Amino acid sequence: MPQQKLLSGSPIGIFDSGIGGLTVLKAVQATLPSERLIYFGDTARVPYGTKSQVTIRKYAREDTELLMKHQPKLIIVACNTISALALEVVEQTAGDIPVIGVLKAGAELAAQRTKSGRIGVIGTQATIGSNAYTCAIRAENDALEVFPKACPLFVPLAEEGFIDHPATRLVAEEYLAELLGQKIDTLVLGCTHYPILRKVIESIGGPQITIIDSAEAVAEKAGELLSKSDLLNQSSEKVLPHLMVSDLPQKFRELYRLFMGTELPDVELVGV
Amino acid sequence: MPQQKLLSGSPIGIFDSGIGGLTVLKAVQATLPSERLIYFGDTARVPYGTKSQVTIRKYAREDTELLMKHQPKLIIVACNTISALALEVVEQTAGDIPVIGVLKAGAELAAQRTKSGRIGVIGTQATIGSNAYTCAIRAENDALEVFPKACPLFVPLAEEGFIDHPATRLVAEEYLAELLGQKIDTLVLGCTHYPILRKVIESIGGPQITIIDSAEAVAEKAGELLSKSDLLNQSSEKVLPHLMVSDLPQKFRELYRLFMGTELPDVELVGV
Repeated sequence: MPQQKLLSGSPIGIFDSGIGGLTVLKAVQATLPSERLIYFGDTARVPYGTKSQVTIRKYAREDTELLMKHQPKLIIVACNTISALALEVVEQTAGDIPVIGVLKAGAELAAQRTKSGRIGVIGTQATIGSNAYTCAIRAENDALEVFPKACPLFVPLAEEGFIDHPATRLVAEEYLAELLGQKIDTLVLGCTHYPILRKVIESIGGPQITIIDSAEAVAEKAGELLSKSDLLNQSSEKVLPHLMVSDLPQKFRELYRLFMGTELPDVELVGV
Repeated sequence: MPQQKLLSGSPIGIFDSGIGGLTVLKAVQATLPSERLIYFGDTARVPYGTKSQVTIRKYAREDTELLMKHQPKLIIVACNTISALALEVVEQTAGDIPVIGVLKAGAELAAQRTKSGRIGVIGTQATIGSNAYTCAIRAENDALEVFPKACPLFVPLAEEGFIDHPATRLVAEEYLAELLGQKIDTLVLGCTHYPILRKVIESIGGPQITIIDSAEAVAEKAGELLSKSDLLNQSSEKVLPHLMVSDLPQKFRELYRLFMGTELPDVELVGV
């Protein structure tokens, strides 16, 4: 593959299986307000978290190829499922363009922040089943103990707007009971939807639990990487993010407000 | 398209966006135990209920083409979303092969059973948003009043096995309150997953509500159609259903037991 020149004025490409990665877009916007951002949500094929590794890897390659057409200087994998099961597919497809994933960023931050060395991780069935957070955290420090727990109802509850609902609290209490029994001091939100339910999760966990938001972690890491490579955008002109989706149901519009707190700007429909 | 000869020994093809249609497979097996059944679940692209009509119609055509390779004598659309938004795509693709959908079967049975003429319908966002149940019920009798309500959390709650859980009861109470306030006497389970939660729904509705299970309704209708066309299978040899899926995650295996009450038999992985 020919060496591609990375330019500071080029965009940062961010992609996810759907809308969940908007928590990453929001965190990157807040951390790096001068950057041009391109977001692709594969809303036609969402969710990835319940699919097989073969299918997820195929989708990961196609999603990356789509972003590559916009010649990004950095690709952020906002999807925990792809970060867990297909990050090297994205890296291979991206060639010389650097790639960072939410999973590794969250794992690194959790390893830095824990004091007791006991870390809980919550995510989709596929992310948790892959054991990837456990591996990534223990690659930082193999003395750390990791307690993973799949929470499949959190995404639909968040998307249904059951944010502060007694049913959400009952479900969260049941999911988190086992982790809290393990005396964790740090809890990684290993799915991009979960920041939406952060308040309920925090109130059940109590003040002694440090919450790690992988979206914030990956935004910080993106800033460090661009700064180190001298690729931060020099222009201070603010531009709206370029949004692309593979299907455009009403739901995307409704959820955009929930995730971003603003109305949906123009969005491009693309085929995959 | 050349006229195809329908043979009584040919199979009945049943398809759905995923595993939900197994409630239809089960009902057809119970009603027509001598028939050969072929089931396709599009587990790679599930769920359809949150996608656009364009995407759903494309998938409906591809799913039908896949079943056509097995030369069925009847195609049953077990997916409410396709029945609501793309039934004529299935009919066009199927040519001379008769097609029946869960939606019309459930609508007909509800229109027959109601005494007060006030019918509630619950389903996914796409099914309810399409207004198709309301149209189908009022096509039977335009004096009937229909009260539709989307219940997006019922599928994930059923799939997570939260069958008899207090959280499910809280969610169901909230979803059904409005319908019960409308003094309905009949409630259509307009999504193939909902029979799994039938007990909770029934206990909230109380004995004065007649529950219509569209899976049972479509199985009865299939029997009538085959009998009238002299296409009932004459052989009494029992054969296991032929199962095909487009992706085979662990989840299919786990859910098969929940839906069918038996272990998963052999299943063929097919591409779409």
